[in-house]
Amino acid sequence: MTRRVRLVGIGSGHPDQLTLAAAAAIEGVDFVIAAAKSAEDPLLESRREICRRHGNPELVPVPDPPRDRNDPADYTGAVGDWHDARAAAYEKVLLERDGDAAFLVWGDPAFYDSTIRIVERILARGNVTFDYDVLPGISSLQVLAAAHRIVLHEVGQPILVTTGRRLAEAVDQGHDNLVVMLDGSLSCTTLKDQPGWHIWWGANLGTPDQALVAGPLVDVLPEIEAARAHAKATSGWVMDTYLLRRS
Amino acid sequence: MTRRVRLVGIGSGHPDQLTLAAAAAIEGVDFVIAAAKSAEDPLLESRREICRRHGNPELVPVPDPPRDRNDPADYTGAVGDWHDARAAAYEKVLLERDGDAAFLVWGDPAFYDSTIRIVERILARGNVTFDYDVLPGISSLQVLAAAHRIVLHEVGQPILVTTGRRLAEAVDQGHDNLVVMLDGSLSCTTLKDQPGWHIWWGANLGTPDQALVAGPLVDVLPEIEAARAHAKATSGWVMDTYLLRRS
Repeated sequence: MTRRVRLVGIGSGHPDQLTLAAAAAIEGVDFVIAAAKSAEDPLLESRREICRRHGNPELVPVPDPPRDRNDPADYTGAVGDWHDARAAAYEKVLLERDGDAAFLVWGDPAFYDSTIRIVERILARGNVTFDYDVLPGISSLQVLAAAHRIVLHEVGQPILVTTGRRLAEAVDQGHDNLVVMLDGSLSCTTLKDQPGWHIWWGANLGTPDQALVAGPLVDVLPEIEAARAHAKATSGWVMDTYLLRRS
Repeated sequence: MTRRVRLVGIGSGHPDQLTLAAAAAIEGVDFVIAAAKSAEDPLLESRREICRRHGNPELVPVPDPPRDRNDPADYTGAVGDWHDARAAAYEKVLLERDGDAAFLVWGDPAFYDSTIRIVERILARGNVTFDYDVLPGISSLQVLAAAHRIVLHEVGQPILVTTGRRLAEAVDQGHDNLVVMLDGSLSCTTLKDQPGWHIWWGANLGTPDQALVAGPLVDVLPEIEAARAHAKATSGWVMDTYLLRRS
C-alpha cells in the first residue's frame, strides 16, 4: 500500500484554529514532520501542543538548512537552492521511518509557504514514493481580518495580496487595497508621506501576544513600531500581516 | 450582561472544514441565524447538519430579501439597499429572541461576504445592542488550492483576488496571477483568444459534487463548461472559483 503524506495547514497561532479535518488527519498519521529554526524554535512548541491534543503522533523536528538572505539578485534561484536542501532533509526522515506522515504547515499551504513545492521536489528525486494531499488552514490574513472585524476589500473590489519586498512596486502600479505578508521590516513605513493610507496591522496573530493597531498610517506608525518591538520582546519572534487601503 | 453575537466562518462545503474554535462557538450560542434563498435552499441543509453536530442550537432561517441583479449602474448603491433589507430582517430575529446568537457564514467573513457590514448596520439602527466577534473560516479559494495541490502564486509574487465582474479590468491592468470568486457566468471565457493562460478551476468545492479541471484555458474550457453544467444539475446550484495564471 502506498504511503500517505498529508500537508496540513494548522492555522496561525492558536491550536483551536485547526479544522476538524486537520485534527483528524494528524490523529491518523504515524509521525509528524515540522521545520524548526532551532531546538528552541517557539513555533515548534505550538506544533508539539497540537500533536499532544490530536492522537500524539511522534513529532520529528527537521532543522531548517541555512538560507542566503543577503537580498541576492537571484531571489528565485536562492529560494530554489533552499527548497532542494529542505527536500533532502525531509527525504531522509521519510527514508528512516515507515508509515504515514503529516507536515504541519503554519497558516495555509496555499499562501507564501514552500511545503507543496518541497514535497514535489522529494517526489521528483525518486528515492521515496508516496501519495500526498493538502488540507487548508486559516492564514494570518484571515486572523487579521477577524481580529479587526473587517472585510479585506470594499464592496465588489479586488484585493492584492503581496509581500513586504514587493509593496512599493504594487503601490506604484496604483493598487490601493493591499494585504502585506512576510514583511520583516515594516515596509509600509515608506508610504508615510503619501496621504490617505489607512492601516489595519497585526503581529503574532492568534497567539497570547497578539498585537493589533488600526488607523491612518501616518498617525499610528509610532504605535505600530512600539507594539512590534513589544511583541518581539515578549514572544521572542515577530510576524506581521497588515491591510493597507487608500481612500 | 450584553448579548453576544458571533460571526462564524464555516468553510466552503464540508462540515469538517469547521475550525475547532468555530465548532465551540456554535455549541455555545442559544440560536443560529442563517440566510436562506428559499425554504429548500440546499446550503441551508449543510448549516442544519453543522448545528446538529455541534450542540444543536435552534437554526433560524431568514429569507434573503430580493436583490436587484439587473447589473445596475449603481452596483454599490444596490448592494447597500440589499444590506439594509437584510439588517432589518436579522434585527427582527434578534428582537424576538433572547440569548447569544451566531451567524453561520459560508467561507470566510473577510472575503466577498456581507455579514460584517450588515451586523454593523444592525448596531447603527440602535434597536438592539450586542457585542460581536468574528471567527475566520476556510474560503473556497483555499479549498481550490488544496484540491489542486497548488500555491496560489509563484515564489514571492503577488495574488490578485477579484470577482468575475472585474476580471477583464484586472487583465487589462496587466495582472497575470488572479483568483476569481463570485463568477456566475464563467467570465474567463472572454480570455480564450489570449495566449498563455492556464486555469485551475473548481465548482461546488468541498461538497460531494466537487468538480475540478486544470489546464491551458483554451484547451479545457469545453471540459469546464460541461463539468459546470453537471455540477449545477447534480447539486441544484453551482459556485465556481478559479486561479488564472499567464506564463
